[in-house]
Amino acid sequence: FPSKQPQVQTTIFTKMSALALEHGALNLSQGFPGFDCAPALQELLQHYAKGHNQYAPMAGVPALRQSLAAKTSSFYDIPVDADTEVTIVSGATEALFAAIHCCVSPGDEVILFDPSYDAYDPIIRLAGGIPIHIPLKASNNFAIDWSSVTAKITPRTRAIMVNSPHNPTGAVWSMADLDAFAQVVKGTNILIVSDEVYEHIVFDGAQHASVLLHPELRKRSFVCGSFGKTYHITGWKIGYCIAPKFLTAEFRKLHQWVTFSSATPLQYALAEYLKEPAHYLGLSDFYQKKRDLFSSQFVGSRWKVLPSAGSFFQCLDYSAISNEKDVDLADRLTREIKVASIPVSVFYETDPGDKILRFCFAKEDEVLVEAAKRLIQIL
Amino acid sequence: FPSKQPQVQTTIFTKMSALALEHGALNLSQGFPGFDCAPALQELLQHYAKGHNQYAPMAGVPALRQSLAAKTSSFYDIPVDADTEVTIVSGATEALFAAIHCCVSPGDEVILFDPSYDAYDPIIRLAGGIPIHIPLKASNNFAIDWSSVTAKITPRTRAIMVNSPHNPTGAVWSMADLDAFAQVVKGTNILIVSDEVYEHIVFDGAQHASVLLHPELRKRSFVCGSFGKTYHITGWKIGYCIAPKFLTAEFRKLHQWVTFSSATPLQYALAEYLKEPAHYLGLSDFYQKKRDLFSSQFVGSRWKVLPSAGSFFQCLDYSAISNEKDVDLADRLTREIKVASIPVSVFYETDPGDKILRFCFAKEDEVLVEAAKRLIQIL
Ligand SMILES: CSCCC(=O)C(=O)O
Ligand SMILES: CSCCC(=O)C(=O)O
Repeated sequence: FPSKQPQVQTTIFTKMSALALEHGALNLSQGFPGFDCAPALQELLQHYAKGHNQYAPMAGVPALRQSLAAKTSSFYDIPVDADTEVTIVSGATEALFAAIHCCVSPGDEVILFDPSYDAYDPIIRLAGGIPIHIPLKASNNFAIDWSSVTAKITPRTRAIMVNSPHNPTGAVWSMADLDAFAQVVKGTNILIVSDEVYEHIVFDGAQHASVLLHPELRKRSFVCGSFGKTYHITGWKIGYCIAPKFLTAEFRKLHQWVTFSSATPLQYALAEYLKEPAHYLGLSDFYQKKRDLFSSQFVGSRWKVLPSAGSFFQCLDYSAISNEKDVDLADRLTREIKVASIPVSVFYETDPGDKILRFCFAKEDEVLVEAAKRLIQIL
Repeated sequence: FPSKQPQVQTTIFTKMSALALEHGALNLSQGFPGFDCAPALQELLQHYAKGHNQYAPMAGVPALRQSLAAKTSSFYDIPVDADTEVTIVSGATEALFAAIHCCVSPGDEVILFDPSYDAYDPIIRLAGGIPIHIPLKASNNFAIDWSSVTAKITPRTRAIMVNSPHNPTGAVWSMADLDAFAQVVKGTNILIVSDEVYEHIVFDGAQHASVLLHPELRKRSFVCGSFGKTYHITGWKIGYCIAPKFLTAEFRKLHQWVTFSSATPLQYALAEYLKEPAHYLGLSDFYQKKRDLFSSQFVGSRWKVLPSAGSFFQCLDYSAISNEKDVDLADRLTREIKVASIPVSVFYETDPGDKILRFCFAKEDEVLVEAAKRLIQIL
């Protein structure tokens, strides 16, 4: 049987979480909260477990699309139409998959920036597209040189995938980045797939620069989001895509053949929970405290704390400590000191040879302190 | 913006359910129960709404894979390995999508039988495959002429999609069908994608002839199933794929990029609910009563009741009543007598011109009686 994806391995998240489990390690690898969602949300699910168990409409439960449109509209101060611009799907991964697959045909090129979330490249290839990786340098704070992007554009460029707040680096775009990006795509037919699942986790008083805020970008963007990171329910697998009407129409054509619709009781619970802004407005503060707690442990150590301006990830550079490859060190730390992390090189097409591990700090404070303690002891 | 699927419309199920809603019609179109799932299952979901809200493992919650393997093993009296042969996904649609996309490359041919569930053809095309439709005749009771299948096989034939109990016709395979099918594929590398979501709804004392029962078929089959039809939870969107180890490995590679994993609290509730055989063993009887109630209403009328040996669908031939096309009649009945159904011609590549509508009888008895009453009055 000739494998269609011979080079594809199990995702790094599956691998590291399984290894963490096997070795009883503190799991700071896969990005998910080490605590439960709010009791109020659990109670809503308990309520909707009765009488809401048959197919949701393909585009999503209307009440949830309306709540999401209203929330997005008020948060970004822009109009969003629940009927024609919002689609509920089974997690942000499905949103990314359907967005790429509804617009990329064999031979089309899609530009993406490394380090890039591990699903982007295979999703593009499965659509027959050609991923064009632009590597960003840790030494340059992962900044994008927009003229290098323009240089990569060809008549076959169909889309550009972007992600802010960024996984794995925690880099966050400013409004100036949106402007620079808009200059690059203006006058082209290039579409944008924007992964904004960490929209509500932005630190130090900054605001999330959503592509929704920039008309030149928004008119060509699939904005892929998720409730998982915002409400501590990564396991609900309810995500969404916000896109202009003509793109939403194409997106739904794909979605209807991929999963058709998403879990009804979860959608009803969210429809109600979303109405309260307090349920997400405090999230940046909540996670900033965790970032600060975790990163402050390394002061005076030879672990170098890289900037984390958003997301719930902290990258640590260990080049002053070890010459090991990051994949080897991540493996060894899990087995020996029982702290699991993600090696950042796996997010690159070509390993830049950096010595960086990614740690998820969406964990209980004690876990963060204990993990840091163990990490410092390897010095 | 050049649409990638210019010919694709909203699925017939979305269209007819929306029309039914708009006109306050009895909705016998889209296939879902008109009643809630068992309170015991609701209570399990309420229980697992606490503490089970983060990512499930990519292949599915181990407890659910084990319950499903044990159930399948005991029901069919075959060994099933929970770790290497079972994957939990976000509904049978995702199972079909991932099965086809993990094995079909551009230019590969996939054979399917018309009438075929409306997602099969676009799923094949999205993988770059070429759907080879073999039309079955209503006048011949939708029987498969296996020699005509052999005649369609070429060196590019990658897979054959089959479906028993059959949607929309209610046709059910016998063990002899499995033998004939095995003769066709024996000695080839052809894979099988078998949609068996109605496995527990088979009438008149017959047993479901799963491809799992036939070693020559099983060794090359992706068996796509769902808990939605069996436990009255079409809205949970939890499905699965059972396949030999080497195919499961390929299947999971796709699944991890499509949705990655499926809703955790729903999986935990099912893991426990599945352990009790009484929760599905009575299902055939339950639905047979509904079939008989619904179909008996048409005795002495000019609606001709076609055989329904399984599934929760009843096809009615109206050729003695009207010359209208089925799509027109389905539309008109929804508006005028407020009974929604599905026109069977939409499941064909080439409309055979039959005069057949499909009715879902997974509804309360009063609804079935009232729908039949209205249908008879159009005579
Ligand atoms: C879908 S599992 C991966 C979770 C995640 O986004 C991450 O760890 O980067
Ligand atoms: C996924 S919606 C369609 C439900 C169904 O299987 C049918 O009505 O045939």
